[in-house]
Amino acid sequence: MTIRRVAIVGLGLLGGSLGLAIRERLSEVKTLGFDHSEETRRRAAERGLADTVCDTLAEVVREADLVLLCVPVGAMKAVASDLAALVPADCIVSDVGSSKQSVMRDLLAALPGKTVIPAHPVAGTEESGPDAGFPGLFAGRWCILTPPSDAPPDRVAELRTFWEALGATVEIMDAEHHDLVLAVTSHIPHLIAFTIVGTASDMEEVTRSEVIKYSAGGFRDFTRIAASDPTMWRDVFLHNRDAVLEMLGRFSEDLTAMQRAIRSGDGDTLFEMFSRTRAIRRSIIEEGQDDAAPDFGRRH
Amino acid sequence: MTIRRVAIVGLGLLGGSLGLAIRERLSEVKTLGFDHSEETRRRAAERGLADTVCDTLAEVVREADLVLLCVPVGAMKAVASDLAALVPADCIVSDVGSSKQSVMRDLLAALPGKTVIPAHPVAGTEESGPDAGFPGLFAGRWCILTPPSDAPPDRVAELRTFWEALGATVEIMDAEHHDLVLAVTSHIPHLIAFTIVGTASDMEEVTRSEVIKYSAGGFRDFTRIAASDPTMWRDVFLHNRDAVLEMLGRFSEDLTAMQRAIRSGDGDTLFEMFSRTRAIRRSIIEEGQDDAAPDFGRRH
Repeated sequence: MTIRRVAIVGLGLLGGSLGLAIRERLSEVKTLGFDHSEETRRRAAERGLADTVCDTLAEVVREADLVLLCVPVGAMKAVASDLAALVPADCIVSDVGSSKQSVMRDLLAALPGKTVIPAHPVAGTEESGPDAGFPGLFAGRWCILTPPSDAPPDRVAELRTFWEALGATVEIMDAEHHDLVLAVTSHIPHLIAFTIVGTASDMEEVTRSEVIKYSAGGFRDFTRIAASDPTMWRDVFLHNRDAVLEMLGRFSEDLTAMQRAIRSGDGDTLFEMFSRTRAIRRSIIEEGQDDAAPDFGRRH
Repeated sequence: MTIRRVAIVGLGLLGGSLGLAIRERLSEVKTLGFDHSEETRRRAAERGLADTVCDTLAEVVREADLVLLCVPVGAMKAVASDLAALVPADCIVSDVGSSKQSVMRDLLAALPGKTVIPAHPVAGTEESGPDAGFPGLFAGRWCILTPPSDAPPDRVAELRTFWEALGATVEIMDAEHHDLVLAVTSHIPHLIAFTIVGTASDMEEVTRSEVIKYSAGGFRDFTRIAASDPTMWRDVFLHNRDAVLEMLGRFSEDLTAMQRAIRSGDGDTLFEMFSRTRAIRRSIIEEGQDDAAPDFGRRH
């Protein structure tokens, strides 16, 4: 491990989990953390989210081998500008944002001549803030790196080694493909969940109390991801707009086909569609991306 | 408890869980079970899903105080017709179906003069069949009774006592309102989950392997309910068509509003919507309808 000193900018769920994971698994690496919120810095210091919690950006990135930007994707541009004069020459600048084309563009523009290698660990929970992080967040999950075409292969290899040491499996793809894949596996599911929870709250004929009481019929599953951080998700949709709108269009077409089948009483089409979806669940479990226990292993 | 002998028709997840719950919590009650599938009867006998597994409908309902129909809602009419000549005079005929107007209509038509009190325990998992049931399925869940307006109050009270003894909390409402409430809290969430899982499987630019690998971004949550029993769900949509189409229309309107906000870069609307949905999650947890543990308590 050539990386000896890591600066974490943003100490929420992702930044905090990174600090804890590094401290647990890479004890020889020195971690420094910064957050623009004083209250978050205080809490981060209490929880030990980094070896040292710094009060300024200048302090956190001083002599860093790796700077990890763990802020909403809409804040990347401003933070990168603030860092431009501060980042050491040999340092790798990376991030954990959920969209990659916009982050790549923003970081490369703000940090000319620096080694920028955007990354996205596909991991998280519905919680946020400095109390939400935990060291095992990345274990067994995938981390996608989207290096620019001219990124030095040895620096990409260093970043890969770093993520693998935290328990993640690394995949490399171009930023455009990343944004399309994640639109399907993450962004559209979140948008749908936010929307249905909103629809249910706005009803007049069905009270909010009824929605809550009978949520075990399926609705409660959607409320989990709809409880995710609003700032983070606003930024994801604004920064991965094209892929999200493209995928949303396909989902809406498919939903209209379902609607037509229900309206016309076409049970065969419904049955055929509902039969195909089990196989994907099975594969996700087989590949270790979810628990096999029924009902997510909820207590009964 | 005036109910001494219960006949369970259909030994899948719900019927099997009922048998096991009664045997565990109401040891003085005799349970008899029947399923039209010989293989299911064999497995039900092995697992002890009922005190006695019968080979005929005539045998299972003989001298029953309560008959529980645990079959897909599309099969209610035929099963009720077969039972018409067999059900004892004082017996309560009930069910566990997810839609209630159609079941009420089918049972009342097929069983004139009998005491019909439809019911819906709002509980389940994504599994099905005779191996899926477990005795704690109904504990802490709601069970909705939708008695016809002329149902004898003392018989409704008997059925309420029965469900409460299994750990459920009972609510009484009319069948039409039930169907509207469950369209929101259960049927539309399932339809959306089936649809998005289908959309993701059909993509050409994103491989199935990528969908599975990066499913921890949110998608995997939807695959759970999209793995539910296809026959059961086909029947629910065909039998609660009007309420489902009404609610689907509202969801689609709300989704279109989200789409417009994304297209026009209206971050304030997105943020406002995403901020409102957290409160519902909190209430669901406070009222014991889901676990508080982040990420459904999945192991990390």
